[in-house]
Amino acid sequence: MQFDVNRDTISQIKQLIADNNDKKLSEMLQELHHADLAEILDAVSFEDAVYIFRLLDSETTAEILTELDDDTREKILSALSPKEIAEEIDELETDDAADIIAELSDEHKEEVISHLEDVEHAKDIVDLLRYDEDTAGGIMGKELIKVYEDWSIFKSVREMRRQAENVDKVFTVYVVDNNEILKGILSLKKMLTTSMKSKVKDIYNNNVISVKVDDPVEEVANIMQKYDLVVLPVVDEMGRLVGRITIDDVVDIIKDEAEKDYQMQAGLTEDVEADDTIFQLVKGRLPWLVLGLIGSLAAVTIMRNFQGIMNNPNLKALFFFTPLIAAVAGNVGVQSSAIVVQGLANGIIRGSVLKRLLKEISISVINGIVLSIIIILFGEVVGYPFIFTFAVSVSLISVIVIASLIGTFVPLILDKNGIDPALATGPFITTSNDIFGILIFFNIARLILHF
Amino acid sequence: MQFDVNRDTISQIKQLIADNNDKKLSEMLQELHHADLAEILDAVSFEDAVYIFRLLDSETTAEILTELDDDTREKILSALSPKEIAEEIDELETDDAADIIAELSDEHKEEVISHLEDVEHAKDIVDLLRYDEDTAGGIMGKELIKVYEDWSIFKSVREMRRQAENVDKVFTVYVVDNNEILKGILSLKKMLTTSMKSKVKDIYNNNVISVKVDDPVEEVANIMQKYDLVVLPVVDEMGRLVGRITIDDVVDIIKDEAEKDYQMQAGLTEDVEADDTIFQLVKGRLPWLVLGLIGSLAAVTIMRNFQGIMNNPNLKALFFFTPLIAAVAGNVGVQSSAIVVQGLANGIIRGSVLKRLLKEISISVINGIVLSIIIILFGEVVGYPFIFTFAVSVSLISVIVIASLIGTFVPLILDKNGIDPALATGPFITTSNDIFGILIFFNIARLILHF
Repeated sequence: MQFDVNRDTISQIKQLIADNNDKKLSEMLQELHHADLAEILDAVSFEDAVYIFRLLDSETTAEILTELDDDTREKILSALSPKEIAEEIDELETDDAADIIAELSDEHKEEVISHLEDVEHAKDIVDLLRYDEDTAGGIMGKELIKVYEDWSIFKSVREMRRQAENVDKVFTVYVVDNNEILKGILSLKKMLTTSMKSKVKDIYNNNVISVKVDDPVEEVANIMQKYDLVVLPVVDEMGRLVGRITIDDVVDIIKDEAEKDYQMQAGLTEDVEADDTIFQLVKGRLPWLVLGLIGSLAAVTIMRNFQGIMNNPNLKALFFFTPLIAAVAGNVGVQSSAIVVQGLANGIIRGSVLKRLLKEISISVINGIVLSIIIILFGEVVGYPFIFTFAVSVSLISVIVIASLIGTFVPLILDKNGIDPALATGPFITTSNDIFGILIFFNIARLILHF
Repeated sequence: MQFDVNRDTISQIKQLIADNNDKKLSEMLQELHHADLAEILDAVSFEDAVYIFRLLDSETTAEILTELDDDTREKILSALSPKEIAEEIDELETDDAADIIAELSDEHKEEVISHLEDVEHAKDIVDLLRYDEDTAGGIMGKELIKVYEDWSIFKSVREMRRQAENVDKVFTVYVVDNNEILKGILSLKKMLTTSMKSKVKDIYNNNVISVKVDDPVEEVANIMQKYDLVVLPVVDEMGRLVGRITIDDVVDIIKDEAEKDYQMQAGLTEDVEADDTIFQLVKGRLPWLVLGLIGSLAAVTIMRNFQGIMNNPNLKALFFFTPLIAAVAGNVGVQSSAIVVQGLANGIIRGSVLKRLLKEISISVINGIVLSIIIILFGEVVGYPFIFTFAVSVSLISVIVIASLIGTFVPLILDKNGIDPALATGPFITTSNDIFGILIFFNIARLILHF
């Protein structure tokens, strides 16, 4: 049933639009899932996207809106009147509805809300707009099924039938007391397998995991992942059930978090994608390049201070090894920081600082010795004196130790101070290790080669 | 209800074990979710882990097994007899059971299977063991609820009650025909809101997304994510319903995929973690370091060929800039390749190659000009002649253009040839760009400075 949006489909659709063949186009589009339709709208021109959008019913277009790229959605919303947007919003679950309204300008927002048909729905949406988008409240939806603990199963089923009208998928039935305080969950399985006369309070499971409205989304994601949850109830400060978060929203958060770390490691400051404009891509790439350049200029200055040794035929070759030292320092630093950043994300950084320090030093020395043997062999083949490659090797091992310690401890320190440790990966580590690496390299070489 | 496993808990538990205070320890452990217990077992010593394990009932320990780190699980399983392992397996859903059995040695495997209590369960597990772990069949479970299309809702509910005994969570009710061919799904909501006398075939939804047993897990993950699915049915070559995949397993795959890309970018060849042994960490880190070193030694050789210019006081400063050139080339290459790798993963690499080429060149020239201005200003302040910094700048812009093209096209070419494009990120790009960068740098400087 799923469907691959490929170039053939896109050109076929473009042709149908060009031919004004609305009948055939509608038939074709009706067959498709809204996620596929969103992919098509993202791929065609703005005019074609609006054309297709107007051909579809509002139930479908509302779902499409939630799946579109931010850019495409913004453009399409700007082509719709507040009343038209309100019609889309009326079709959506409260969490998706609130997300879309939150993207509108303040003025636009009020107008759209005033056009909403269902007052209860509108109230729920306005309520959700209050929460910060990075908190549980910001991603929760209001649609859920709840029963009161003193109801019978019979009454519960009847009430659930009524409530189910407004809920797209029935995942979990929540049990609350008369003060709306979340008490537990009622498993559908248990409902299917017990007598209709039982009371909810006798069969519900009080072992329910919940989050508070102001818990950060990363914590929500970790909890849902750790406990393999599909839906997670959200309570307010008093423990009253106010909403629920579904796994599909959290999957997106997990993916976004991973992409953010990946991009930071690659030296991309903004969330850039291959099909962004040149300007967006420059904005995402230039800042780290400038930072890296400034670091490299510091290294230039260090080397300038050692320019005297260029006159010594036995020493000038040290300059051939500076990019090597910088590269190894950079690679080692990135490895160390990546391991720490992932360890922090997965909560497996345990044990004492001293133990971690000794471990990093051991790994560095082993790696350094292997690399040194290669350098000394290379020197023998190419014709560098042993004392020279020995000096390079000793400096290299020192550089590796320092680089790995910087790579390990900078993210740990950032994390301890509440700063995203992923900031200390990629260009940041490469650059600082370039400078330290070259400084250490020349100074240790000087000790050994006596210049 | 969730719970933070911290150092205090761990040391409290260690103390209770040391005191042989089984009663208090049991009480404490009973309160905890199996995911938290798994975290505790991962954190304590092997002996303590086995001690705790033996204190818990087999329903809990079975769930714990599925959540443990691979290392801890392997160790604990090795401490159990085949019969004890079979008791754990009896408690598990088929997919988790098959995963654990698959980790055992062939001989061990048969013995464990021979001890399984429930023959149907054992059959299902053996059946699952046939599938490759990287396919839909390899991650699916057999537990599901299905109804036949000519059943009434009344009969369906009765049969569902019976089937629900073996299914932990009721997510979706599948509809099959008499040949077991998957026809659609029956929404619980619809069941709650229609007459008990209706026939399944009159109310089921035939719009069901499914995968085939041999579809790769990455595709399964993409489909579940794209269509916001919580559970996905799996069919065999004939379209018969054979199992289902739940989102919690797919969340783990999505996370693993993202971590794999992150580690490749960081130059880690194995799936290493902060708490692995020194040997494992060296094994994960050394290969890319060696590769990077070999690349750097090639750069050493290139520079050696240009050593003559060290005698020219106006030119020798070129050597101060080699780490800068290598660093910029590396950073630019990593940025470009990361954007392509993410674009490929998200399926947004569209449009012609020529257009992509022109875009990369434009971005590179803009970034290059900004960096060049900084270098020229730096030169003015520090006292390098303009013609010198001009030559450095022109070379740098050329290096950036080439580096970004390599970073863009190497992953695209790998992908076209069915190789994981993420291989072309991190140290691979940094190293090859180091060599090209330094080669281009000296040659262009020679053209401008006439040496």
